[in-house]
Amino acid sequence: MSIDAVLSRIDADLPAATDRLLRLLRIPSISTDPAFADDCDRAADWLVEDLKSLGFNAEKRLTPGHPMVVGHGGEGDRHLLFYGHYDVQPVDPLDLWDRDPFDPEIQDTGAGQVIRGRGAADDKGQLMTFVEACRAWIAVHGKLPARVTFFFEGEEESGSPSLVPFMKDNAEELTTDLALICDTGLFESRVPAITTMLRGLLGEELTITGPDKDLHSGMYGGAAINPARVLARIIAALHDDTGRITVPGFYDGVPELPAGLRGQWDNLGFDAQAFLAGVGLSEPAGEAGRTALEMIWSRPTCEVNGMWSGYTGAGFKTVLPSQASAKISFRLVGDQDPLAIRESFRKMVQDMLPPDCTVEFTPHGTGRAGAFETTGPDFAAARQALSDEWPDEAAFIGCGGSIPIAGHFADLLGVTPMLIGFGKEDDQIHSPNEKYDMESFHKGIRSWARVLDALT
Amino acid sequence: MSIDAVLSRIDADLPAATDRLLRLLRIPSISTDPAFADDCDRAADWLVEDLKSLGFNAEKRLTPGHPMVVGHGGEGDRHLLFYGHYDVQPVDPLDLWDRDPFDPEIQDTGAGQVIRGRGAADDKGQLMTFVEACRAWIAVHGKLPARVTFFFEGEEESGSPSLVPFMKDNAEELTTDLALICDTGLFESRVPAITTMLRGLLGEELTITGPDKDLHSGMYGGAAINPARVLARIIAALHDDTGRITVPGFYDGVPELPAGLRGQWDNLGFDAQAFLAGVGLSEPAGEAGRTALEMIWSRPTCEVNGMWSGYTGAGFKTVLPSQASAKISFRLVGDQDPLAIRESFRKMVQDMLPPDCTVEFTPHGTGRAGAFETTGPDFAAARQALSDEWPDEAAFIGCGGSIPIAGHFADLLGVTPMLIGFGKEDDQIHSPNEKYDMESFHKGIRSWARVLDALT
Repeated sequence: MSIDAVLSRIDADLPAATDRLLRLLRIPSISTDPAFADDCDRAADWLVEDLKSLGFNAEKRLTPGHPMVVGHGGEGDRHLLFYGHYDVQPVDPLDLWDRDPFDPEIQDTGAGQVIRGRGAADDKGQLMTFVEACRAWIAVHGKLPARVTFFFEGEEESGSPSLVPFMKDNAEELTTDLALICDTGLFESRVPAITTMLRGLLGEELTITGPDKDLHSGMYGGAAINPARVLARIIAALHDDTGRITVPGFYDGVPELPAGLRGQWDNLGFDAQAFLAGVGLSEPAGEAGRTALEMIWSRPTCEVNGMWSGYTGAGFKTVLPSQASAKISFRLVGDQDPLAIRESFRKMVQDMLPPDCTVEFTPHGTGRAGAFETTGPDFAAARQALSDEWPDEAAFIGCGGSIPIAGHFADLLGVTPMLIGFGKEDDQIHSPNEKYDMESFHKGIRSWARVLDALT
Repeated sequence: MSIDAVLSRIDADLPAATDRLLRLLRIPSISTDPAFADDCDRAADWLVEDLKSLGFNAEKRLTPGHPMVVGHGGEGDRHLLFYGHYDVQPVDPLDLWDRDPFDPEIQDTGAGQVIRGRGAADDKGQLMTFVEACRAWIAVHGKLPARVTFFFEGEEESGSPSLVPFMKDNAEELTTDLALICDTGLFESRVPAITTMLRGLLGEELTITGPDKDLHSGMYGGAAINPARVLARIIAALHDDTGRITVPGFYDGVPELPAGLRGQWDNLGFDAQAFLAGVGLSEPAGEAGRTALEMIWSRPTCEVNGMWSGYTGAGFKTVLPSQASAKISFRLVGDQDPLAIRESFRKMVQDMLPPDCTVEFTPHGTGRAGAFETTGPDFAAARQALSDEWPDEAAFIGCGGSIPIAGHFADLLGVTPMLIGFGKEDDQIHSPNEKYDMESFHKGIRSWARVLDALT
């Protein structure tokens, strides 16, 4: 069996593969912060060189933001595309990290080895699973079993402003039989999964201004409007007492879960208690009358991601702040229209503003929710391949996160996306001390080799 | 007339006096931030040396916090104490300053010369008005017309934790005929004033914790409690729709304004429109049915001075924060009890906490409101002295700020406090670009010389 030799090669090459990942992790490619633009560029260069070492025709492709990396290689009847992103989230609060986020290391934990560092799981470690699977395949067979296009983005964590224009401008080059996307997780950190339902995203930042400068709260307090209080009232008003979101028209296009899928999800035996206990909580805090799995996979949300006003340093300062700001994101499902919700949200905020206050909005990324077809031989073959690698049979699942790229492949290029990933719930992506299990990395590489085999 | 020679000396010495003030302003004595502890110490040393140059027996007196400066000099039947504070507020947001806050300079404006820098008005410039009045008096007459005790504090902007213990431990030394306090302003930036009503202060900091780490808002959003939303609900609930504060028992001890004082205040012709227009506002935002002067002088308040949660940097980060914090201060009037209100506030917050959330409180300073006696010959004499110096007749006024030291003199030592100051409404104390008018400094020094003359 040709696949056995590839799997053996993957096992033998694991230390070298790990070392390559560590080198990529050392590049602080934080896309949202302009101070790290050069580092994003370096990460793209590193990937171009690595793909070239596989014999790929790879290039860094410039955009108005951070560059894309595109590489072509292999030959055969089928043409598969693989997507991942090389940018990472910011690292603050830095004092909660046990080590430098960009000085990754392999750590032994009670639950096995982990790769610790920013981007280990989201998404550099996942991205490299596919690269390493191809490297092993080429080492054993001299060439890949299909045409393969790599497509790596550097703006996924900052709203992907260049993605849609780039995909439109390079539609022909990126149109393939299937788009494999590695940016999701195992179900319950254990069961291999193909994610078929993703939430969309709308990001908004707002700054409310009252007085034209910070004031002394003794001199002016009582008579002058306090924008921090105004912001608090607005945020408090975004949900009603049952946890429903109050933005007018917000629930337009939110479907109820189809009975069939609800049954399948109920059968997954999701342990909401354990899921929440893992982060120090005991009960679901969302919409009344919904299960935790519904809340995170199939219901829309509105969350405050950041909020700030006035004096936030040590000690006390009796300032009456001039401004108050918040970063707010909405997770979307079904046919919710991000642009319509943005407009309705902004109007709601404007309508709540008291006299003498103004508001400025900064739009961040938007993406519609996605629900993808899972019929057809490719999904059955991939599901079987994953089931062969892992102890449990693979599942089709939902995901609370937002991966707009999946919808773009379907909507812009007519290419079916297939989302397979190996992250675990305790990976702490977007948080301090992010990690990727060595098991995720190793079996992830092996999984892609099996999927490649199954799809060709 | 002996006072004329002193006033002439003050006029002639103004450039040198200004230079001395600039030297004191260059010391960044921010008391609330431990990083500036050495600078607070340096400011105290500078004052000790300056008082010694007047022939005073002056010392830096250590406390568990920043040191006090105490100096004794002069002789005579009367014993007057003078209080000021040498510490200053933090300077952020630094980017809103037109220059280094601790590199002060004299600037020509359309409205005359100003001394620009942190602490120019609050309170180093005011503190030096009395020192310079004494210096001129000594230069002309060889000695002061009374026993004088200087008492300078270095923790006024950080809740004065060492003040009451120090006053108790040194009660005999600090018990004098009258306590002159220079930390208030002119009425409407023009009319000389003795402040006879001050609001009290209660400072509280709270941190609400939900999940035990920052989470990915896609993975957990909807199911996990968001402490930023919890904090917003709590802050929003602190006022009702009429602007009244909802903390149970909060209005216990809040008196209605006596008719006589209300009449006097109405006659002051306070221009609320102009007061608010000066900071970019057009209408009073406080309790319904109250005048702006009532709101800032005689009504209690609850203000958010700072608020922070989650990601506050550039760009966007879809984090569901683990914690949310706020600094909240209450201005108190009448017989409101700060400690009872602290307890009631904390209970209200605890009662509003949803499951899985905890709250931690950090107490900041407290001080009761003060309303001081103004009958007796000293107040009449001082009022006349001020009326002699300024174009308008001096007024007895209220003040929205909190100067707990005034109450401590009355309550702990039985010493009558007399609050006279020369600040203007546009001094931007506690804000970027703080300044003190050269007129305030010059006529302030002259005012104290006249008051010294009138009281002895």
